Formats: sequence, C-alpha cells, structure tokens
Amino acid sequence: MTAATQSLGAGAGTALHPGHPLQPADGVVTAFSAGETRAMEAALQAALRGPRGANPLVGAVVVDPEGNHLITGFHRGAGTAHAEADAIAQAAAAGVDLSGCTMLVTLEPCNHLGRTGPCAQAIIAAGITDVVYAVDDPHDPAAGGAATLRAAGVRVRSGLGAAESLDLNRQWFEAVTAKRPFVTLHIAQTLDSRIAAQDGTSQWISSPESLADNHAIRGRIDAILVGTQTVLVDNPRLTARDPQGTPAPNQPVRAVMGLRDVPGGAAVRGTDGRVTHLRTRDPHEALSLLYASGTRHLMVEGGSRILSAFLAAGLVDELIVYLAPTLLGSGTPALDGLGITTLADAQQWEWDESDGGAVRRLGRDLRLHLRPQRTVALDPQPSRATAEQAQEGH
Amino acid sequence: MTAATQSLGAGAGTALHPGHPLQPADGVVTAFSAGETRAMEAALQAALRGPRGANPLVGAVVVDPEGNHLITGFHRGAGTAHAEADAIAQAAAAGVDLSGCTMLVTLEPCNHLGRTGPCAQAIIAAGITDVVYAVDDPHDPAAGGAATLRAAGVRVRSGLGAAESLDLNRQWFEAVTAKRPFVTLHIAQTLDSRIAAQDGTSQWISSPESLADNHAIRGRIDAILVGTQTVLVDNPRLTARDPQGTPAPNQPVRAVMGLRDVPGGAAVRGTDGRVTHLRTRDPHEALSLLYASGTRHLMVEGGSRILSAFLAAGLVDELIVYLAPTLLGSGTPALDGLGITTLADAQQWEWDESDGGAVRRLGRDLRLHLRPQRTVALDPQPSRATAEQAQEGH
Repeated sequence: MTAATQSLGAGAGTALHPGHPLQPADGVVTAFSAGETRAMEAALQAALRGPRGANPLVGAVVVDPEGNHLITGFHRGAGTAHAEADAIAQAAAAGVDLSGCTMLVTLEPCNHLGRTGPCAQAIIAAGITDVVYAVDDPHDPAAGGAATLRAAGVRVRSGLGAAESLDLNRQWFEAVTAKRPFVTLHIAQTLDSRIAAQDGTSQWISSPESLADNHAIRGRIDAILVGTQTVLVDNPRLTARDPQGTPAPNQPVRAVMGLRDVPGGAAVRGTDGRVTHLRTRDPHEALSLLYASGTRHLMVEGGSRILSAFLAAGLVDELIVYLAPTLLGSGTPALDGLGITTLADAQQWEWDESDGGAVRRLGRDLRLHLRPQRTVALDPQPSRATAEQAQEGH
Repeated sequence: MTAATQSLGAGAGTALHPGHPLQPADGVVTAFSAGETRAMEAALQAALRGPRGANPLVGAVVVDPEGNHLITGFHRGAGTAHAEADAIAQAAAAGVDLSGCTMLVTLEPCNHLGRTGPCAQAIIAAGITDVVYAVDDPHDPAAGGAATLRAAGVRVRSGLGAAESLDLNRQWFEAVTAKRPFVTLHIAQTLDSRIAAQDGTSQWISSPESLADNHAIRGRIDAILVGTQTVLVDNPRLTARDPQGTPAPNQPVRAVMGLRDVPGGAAVRGTDGRVTHLRTRDPHEALSLLYASGTRHLMVEGGSRILSAFLAAGLVDELIVYLAPTLLGSGTPALDGLGITTLADAQQWEWDESDGGAVRRLGRDLRLHLRPQRTVALDPQPSRATAEQAQEGH
C-alpha cells in the first residue's frame, strides 16, 4: 500500500501540505517566530488525530524557550480532555516542567467548568507564561479564556494558523453558528451503491469490522436518526453494542423522523425512554428539535430518503461510507435524488484525513471518510478582530 | 494514512500473509530448503508489482549457493521482458555473475521465441545451474522450458509455491483455459455509483489523473469495448492518448458490441481501420470473436448494459473503479441489473494489491482495484503432475 500511503495526502486543509507554511494574519506577521510557526503546524497535525463531532478538532504543542517541542496534546472527542489539558497531563505524567514555556494551541483555551475543567486555569497552574492560539472559541460560555490568562500575567497572542484552524473545523463552526447539531451521515453500501437487495435484504452488506466501527461511533454521539420507513422495514434497535451484543455505557438518543407512526412494538422504542419521534420530513426542523433537546452530534443512518433529504439540504458535515467489495446490480440505491440534473451541479466532497484517515480497511470493506468541499471562506466570527485577520490571511 | 497502510494488506493470495509459509506440494516437501522457500515468497511478492492482462504476473529471484538474494525480476506486462529475462538483464547491467546460482520463478520458464526471446536459453546462457518454478506454463507453444533446461544440464524442480502462484493468476489461468481474452472492466463513477447525470452529462466524472490512468491502460491492451448505446450517446474515440491529446504508440482495437448500426460518422470509426462491430448482445460471443482475431487482453468500458452483461456472465477478471468524491443522487447507475435478487447472492470481489495496490489516490479520485473472490480451487492443468500436486497442497 505504498502508493496509497504516498498519494492519500492531506485533504484536511492547506496546513498539511509540505512547503505551504502557515500564513499568519496580516499585521501580526512579526509577532510569531519560525519556531512558533512550526509548533503551530505540529499542533494542527495533532488536532487531525481526533474525531469530529460535538467538539472541534484541537491540538496543542508546548515548546521551551529554545523552541524545543516538549509535549503534544490533542482532543479525543466529547467527554475527554481538551488538547491543552491533555498536553499538561502528559507533561505531568512524564515529569516534564512546563514553567516558563509557550503553548501553541489551535483554538482559544476555554474558561468554563465543563466536563473537563477550564483549560485557562490548567495553563496558569502549569506555569506556562506564553500562549499562542489560532482562533477564538465561538461559544459564548467558553469565551474569556484569553482574558483570564492575561489577567494572570500570561502573554497571549492569537491569529497564527487561524485560516488553517478555521478550515480544519469549518463544518463545526458552521454548525455552531447555525445552532444545529454537527451531522455525521453514514452509508453502508456495495460498490454499486446499493443499501439493500431487490427483496429488501440488507443484513449485512458491511463487514463485522464496519459494524463494530459504526457501533463505536454510536457510543460517542448524542443522537442517531432514521426514517419511519427504516423502522417499519428493518426494525433496528439503534443502540450502541459491542460485537457480543453488550450495550455500550453511553447510548445515543434514538430519533425517528417522518409522519408515519412508530409501531408500539418497534425495537427502536427500547425500554429506557431515550427515543423520540420527530413528526416532520424537513431535516432543518428535525435538527432544530434535536438541538433544542441538547443534541450536539447527530448521526444520520438511513434509509435512502432520509440520507437524500439531509444531503440535498446541505446539512451533512461528515460523510462515512462503508464500501463493501460486492455488487448487487439492483435493489435500493443509497440515494434517491438530490435535486441534481446535470454533472456540473454534482455535490463535491473532499477526503477527510482526520480520525484515522480518509480511507481505511475495515475487514473486507473500505471505510471512506469525507467532508463537504470548501466552497467559500467561512466567517463565523465577523465581529472579532482575530477571526477577521484570519480571513484576510486565508 | 498509517491505518490504511497497516490494514490494506494482502488480498492477492495467501502467499502474502506474514506467518503463512508457502506450502510445497505433497511429496516434494524435502526438495526445497528454507532459503528457497523464502526466495519463492520474494518472487511471488515481486510478481505482484506487475500489471494484469494478456500475460500472467510472474516474479523471479536469483540466489547464490549461500542463499543470498542477488537479483529480483518481475514481468511488467505484454511486450516487456519476462521476469527471468528481467532478472538476468538486471544482473548483467549490474555486473553480477549468476553462474552456479539458483533461480526461483513463479511460472515455468518459456521456451518459445516470442517478443522477448526464450527464457530457458537466457537462463542457460547466464550459467544458472538450478531452477525452481512454481507452476507449469499452460500454453502449448511455451511448454518445454523445463525440458530444455534439463537437456542443458540445469537441475529443475517445480511445485514450490504452486498453490500461491495459481491463486495469484487464477483469473488468467481461467481465461487461458477458456480460450478467451483476459477481461478488465472499467467503471468511472461517483460515490453513489452514477456514471452520468440525469441529463446524460458524464464528462468528466473522473479526475484528469484517472483519465490519464485509463488512457495508459488503453495503450497496453489489445482491444477496448463499448456498447452501441455508448457510441450513439457519448460518441467516444476510444483511442489511447496522452493528456495533450497525442496518440500513444500502441492503439487498441476498438470494438463496438450490439445489434444497432454504428453511424458512419461515429468517432470510434477513426481512420486506421482498427475498429470492429460485434453484432451480438452475448458477451461470450463477443469474447470468442475477439479471441479469434487475436485479442488476449480486453478492457470493457461501458455503458451500464455492457458492464452489467459482462459482470452477470462472470466474464470479468479485473475490476477497476475510478471513484470520484461526488454525489449525484440520480442519473445513470453504473450497473442496471445482474440478475441478483437477494443479498446472499451478491457478487463477491476481493481487493487486488497487484500493479500499485488495491486503493490508490488519483487526483481527487480513488482508484479501486479488485478481482473476483476465489470460490473454488482452479484446476487448469489436470493432466500434469505438478499442477495436481499443487492442488493437493492448496
């Protein structure tokens, strides 16, 4: 697989192309050293190792005054340590003293007491005296980390790698700005993009390894969504289970979308009350309802009509395709219309190298990982100077 | 891409699984040393580097009496040196003396004066005193290489790696036995397996890099085939051209299959007379006609009906899918029926790691490379002892 290794490059933003140095925002060019630029590039690379979802991809690198990289942290997804806390915890475990050092982090350190404690306080406690971050955190509750750091005497600068960090998380910024969940869409299909045979059989198109991967994702999202048609035809449970059938500790809310009733005996109903029927065919409305009840990361599982509705509405942030090396030639196509009539209007996607890569082998399947192709530069923080500078440097 | 590198393994036969040593045929176990077994494994690996087509994949390794690997050769496709000649030429160029050495080769050395000269004579001339080959060459004209070598005093043994070599080239053996061309099938599709949009637009679903790859294949096959529908709708030239439009030195015969007439002004007619109209809808008949006129490697390009007819008939030896990261949601599906109604009857394929790998990035596309999954052991040489032994050891 040497060829694939060589050629399946970047895909997650310009930051990863060798020879394409970070572009600091205009006006602050002199504020960052070459060493800081290299460290921010390393932080962006580290960020890519995490999974997409309710939280953005974030990486953090701590360098000593001579510019040596002491420690690298990244965020592993909702409920786990932020990148800064990860780096500081690693340093503590390794007995590495970070006092007097500089942290470069791809997002403004948080100031809120979430599940993992405020990073600003952890940075101060670690004795770090300089912080360089790429872009401001767009969440109101988290805003203020920079101010807290400054108040404690930490030198704080921002804007280095801003364009790259915004690009890395552009779908996440879009979801946050729109106040909707981050949407992962899942398709388990044959090479000829069928999700069921003519007689309706669809278990199992994917390999056991793909099914396990899907269940691992179920275990870390807030909600999973299918259409009423899928409930009526396939009667899925939609719980997160290990290969032995044991339920995972965290279970997603099970959402069924559509106007038809969910039968009383449907498996999706379960016994834990974590099921909701969204009586709408409009994906925007479905997302609003889910967001209002706390869902920040949704996985849309199917069937064709639901997949197509979310894709046609431009409401998919991450696309995961389990591609089985099989052909059916007929049966249910994965998609049943996106309102596209000519090739020039085809939806363009790009390979997403985050979270293990754009193309992985799962058993005999390929797992393809994509995100929408960038069309225009995002401007999620129009009122804040740092983001504006970042846009100029983009 | 570390994950992909680790997981996109073998797929081209058991020979490549680490820890799965070669299985010599029963009765000849004691004839091969551990060093010879390792060298045959290396020869099988080298064979994988070549392209599939009119000729089988073949690798050759020469070891000195101490078991050191001196040189490795492989066959790069029709019209180029055989693996043995490649190894010997490399040794000559590097000033390496092969006299008194042992050659391990995955197919019986040829004895015929083809485009590249008989390998048996080259081996004798190089002073090689021992030859171990995996399986007999099934071609009558080529048979006798072993006898020629023995007559010249070379010690010849066979059967080591026979099962692996047969598996490596099982589709080629099948085509040779059936006296039909080796068939490569090409699909240029979107992620949702559409080969044209609703309005018929299909240029270009694939990236320029995929198109260049397709034209490179056109330049080394004997014939290319499309249906009359494709000629009427897309009016392709079907010539092999470089990105600047310059014709390649070798051009395939252009075959159009179907009962409708090919219009007088169709681009496929060209001016060189290398075009043929196969007035049939039966892929078996089309292959017979092409084989009779000398075609040994055919690429089937489309459209849906033709692709489906060859696949449904089980007449595809190699599948190349250019997968664009785009979605159409509607339009022409790549396949329009394989006679399969239930998932249990789906056509099973396996990843083919030969010729650069099972998954490659070509521009923004993925190039997927597959071959039919092995169902039963082939028995292409039932009357010959070596092949029988190989089957037993399979």
